Amino acid sequence: MDDRIGQALAAAIAAGDQVRGTTSPNPPVGAAIISAAGELVGVGGTQPAGGAHAEIMALAAAGERTRGGVAVVTLEPCNHRGRTGPCSHALVEAGIRQVHYVHSDPNAQAAGGAEYLRDHGVEVVQLSTTVPALKSWLSALRLGRPHVTLKFAQTLDGFTAASDGSSQWITGEHSRRDVHRDRLHRDAIIIGTGTALADNPSLTARLDEATPPERQPRRVVIGTRDLSGYAENLHRLGFEQYPEISVAMAALWDKGDRDILVEGGAGLASGFIEEGVVDTVRAYLAPMLLGDGRGILSRAVGQTLVDAARFHLDDVSRLGEDVLLEFSRKD
Amino acid sequence: MDDRIGQALAAAIAAGDQVRGTTSPNPPVGAAIISAAGELVGVGGTQPAGGAHAEIMALAAAGERTRGGVAVVTLEPCNHRGRTGPCSHALVEAGIRQVHYVHSDPNAQAAGGAEYLRDHGVEVVQLSTTVPALKSWLSALRLGRPHVTLKFAQTLDGFTAASDGSSQWITGEHSRRDVHRDRLHRDAIIIGTGTALADNPSLTARLDEATPPERQPRRVVIGTRDLSGYAENLHRLGFEQYPEISVAMAALWDKGDRDILVEGGAGLASGFIEEGVVDTVRAYLAPMLLGDGRGILSRAVGQTLVDAARFHLDDVSRLGEDVLLEFSRKD
Repeated sequence: MDDRIGQALAAAIAAGDQVRGTTSPNPPVGAAIISAAGELVGVGGTQPAGGAHAEIMALAAAGERTRGGVAVVTLEPCNHRGRTGPCSHALVEAGIRQVHYVHSDPNAQAAGGAEYLRDHGVEVVQLSTTVPALKSWLSALRLGRPHVTLKFAQTLDGFTAASDGSSQWITGEHSRRDVHRDRLHRDAIIIGTGTALADNPSLTARLDEATPPERQPRRVVIGTRDLSGYAENLHRLGFEQYPEISVAMAALWDKGDRDILVEGGAGLASGFIEEGVVDTVRAYLAPMLLGDGRGILSRAVGQTLVDAARFHLDDVSRLGEDVLLEFSRKD
Repeated sequence: MDDRIGQALAAAIAAGDQVRGTTSPNPPVGAAIISAAGELVGVGGTQPAGGAHAEIMALAAAGERTRGGVAVVTLEPCNHRGRTGPCSHALVEAGIRQVHYVHSDPNAQAAGGAEYLRDHGVEVVQLSTTVPALKSWLSALRLGRPHVTLKFAQTLDGFTAASDGSSQWITGEHSRRDVHRDRLHRDAIIIGTGTALADNPSLTARLDEATPPERQPRRVVIGTRDLSGYAENLHRLGFEQYPEISVAMAALWDKGDRDILVEGGAGLASGFIEEGVVDTVRAYLAPMLLGDGRGILSRAVGQTLVDAARFHLDDVSRLGEDVLLEFSRKD
C-alpha cells in the first residue's frame, strides 16, 4: 500500500472509531480524501442516523479539492437512497478517480457501490485489513441480531463480589474508566432485574462526573420482577424492561441497536451463555483471590469439561494492576 | 553502559538462567569475561552445589585471556571459602582489572566480595538492572524460607475442573509445555494428599516423553492422609511427605530448597494463602467458562472484599489461546 493511502486509511479508521456508538443502525464508518496533488484534504465519520455518511462528510471537508482525487473508506460506499443519497453517486459527482475501501457492505439493500463506481470509470481497490470499529456491526448484520458483549469485573479466581456482596472496588481506577469509555460506544447496556434491585445502578457512561456525555446508551433491564419503588436511578434516567432475552434482542434490533453490552448479574450472564448469543467477552481481572463469593455465572454450563463455553482469545491488555482479556465466540 | 558490557551482561544473564533449578542452595549465577582486547572470551553458570561457581567457570573458559580483562557477574562475587574457594580471590589471581555485578550478595557469610576486590586494586561497578533467574533465590534469602510459587490452570471463571472432576485438558498444549519447562527450574513440586490420592501424579518435568531430564525437582506431598496403596507413580519415583505446611517449609529449607512450586489442590492452595507465604502466583487462564466446578481455593479468604489476598501484576503473556498471568506478593 502506498504511504499516502496508508495515512488516509489510518485517518479514516480513526474517524470511524470516534463515532462508534452514535450511528446505529448505520455502521460507524470513516472516510478520507486525498487531492489530485496528493494531500489529505478531508476526513469524516458517519453522523447519527438520518445524517450524512462518512464519505459525504469527507467530501464536504475537501470542498473543491475532490476533483481527480482518491477516497479511502472503511466500508464499501453505499449505493442506496435511504434518508440520505447514495455515497457512490456523490463520489462520482465529486470527480473522485479512485476509491479504496476495506470491508464489503453485507447489507443487500445498500450494496453495489463498488460496481456503480466501476461502471462510472472510477478505479476501485479493496484493502486487506480489518477495522475494529466495524467489528460489532458486521457481526450483527451477519447474525441478524445485535452483537452481544458480555462484560465482567472479577477476581483472578472468578468472583465478582465477596460472600457478603461487597464488590466496590474489585478492579482499579484504570479498569473503571475503561468500562465507562466502552459503555459510550454501545447502543444499549443490559442488566438483570436482580442487579437493578440490588445495586440501583445508573448505567451511564461517566467519563467526567460533572459533564456526562449527551449521548448515552439505552438502559435495558431483562426479567419479570417488578421494579416499582426500586432502582430509583433507572426510573429517573429512563429505561426499558423486557421479560426475557429473546424478546429484548428482537426489540433492540428493531429499534436499531447493533452493539449491546451485557453487564450482569450472574443469572442474566448464564442466560446469555445458554442462549448461545455471547459474541464477545470482556473480562477485567483484578489481582486478588477471594476463595469464595459471587461467581460470574449463576449455574454450571455443564457437568463435564466438554460442555464448557469456549472462546477465542483476541486481545490482552494491562490496565494498571488489572488485566483486560477480550474473547470472541468460537464458531 | 558500554556496548561490550551490555553484551557480556546479556550472556551472563542467559548463563544464569540456564542453570536455574540446578544450583540450590546456591544461587543460579551467570558470569562472562571480556579480554583486555575487548572480546567476550568466557561465559559460565553456577554448577550444582559443591561444584564451581559461575565466575570460576567463566574464568576457566577464558583461559589465559583473563589478564587485564573485565568480569561481568549477575551477583556480587563471593568472598567465602565453602566447598569451593572465594571467587573474589580467583578474579584477582586471574588478573581481572574491572568487575561489574548486578545484585549484592545478601548472604552475610559470603558477602564482602566487592570490598575484597577493591582492596586488591580491582575497579568494581554495580549495574542497575534485575536478573530474573535470581528473583526467587534473593527472595528466599530475605525471607529465611523457600520462595513459594502457587500455580494453577483455570477457566476464565476460576475453575480448575468441572463438577464431575474432569480437568484434562483445561489449558492448551502451549501452557502444558510451559508448566513442564517451569517445573524443571524448581527445587520442589508440592501437592496435597487429596491430589496425590485422586490423580496419581508423577510430578516430573516432561519436556520430551522419551527422555525425561536427568535432574528432576523434589516431589513433596503435604497432609496427614496415608498414601499406602495409592499414588503409585509417586511411590515408584520417590517422594517426601510432611504433615503440614510449616513443617514442610522448614524441612525443605534445611535440605537446600530455595524455590518451590505449589501445584494444588484447592485445600493446599488455601492453606498456603492463609499462612501468608505465597510469594508468586502463576495462573494459566483458558478461554472458557464453566459456571460451576472446582475452585482454585477451597474456602473463602474472608467474607468481605477487604479480606481478599491481593497481589501485584508482574507479567502477562499469551500461550496459544491461553494467557499466563504472573503476580507477586503485595508487601
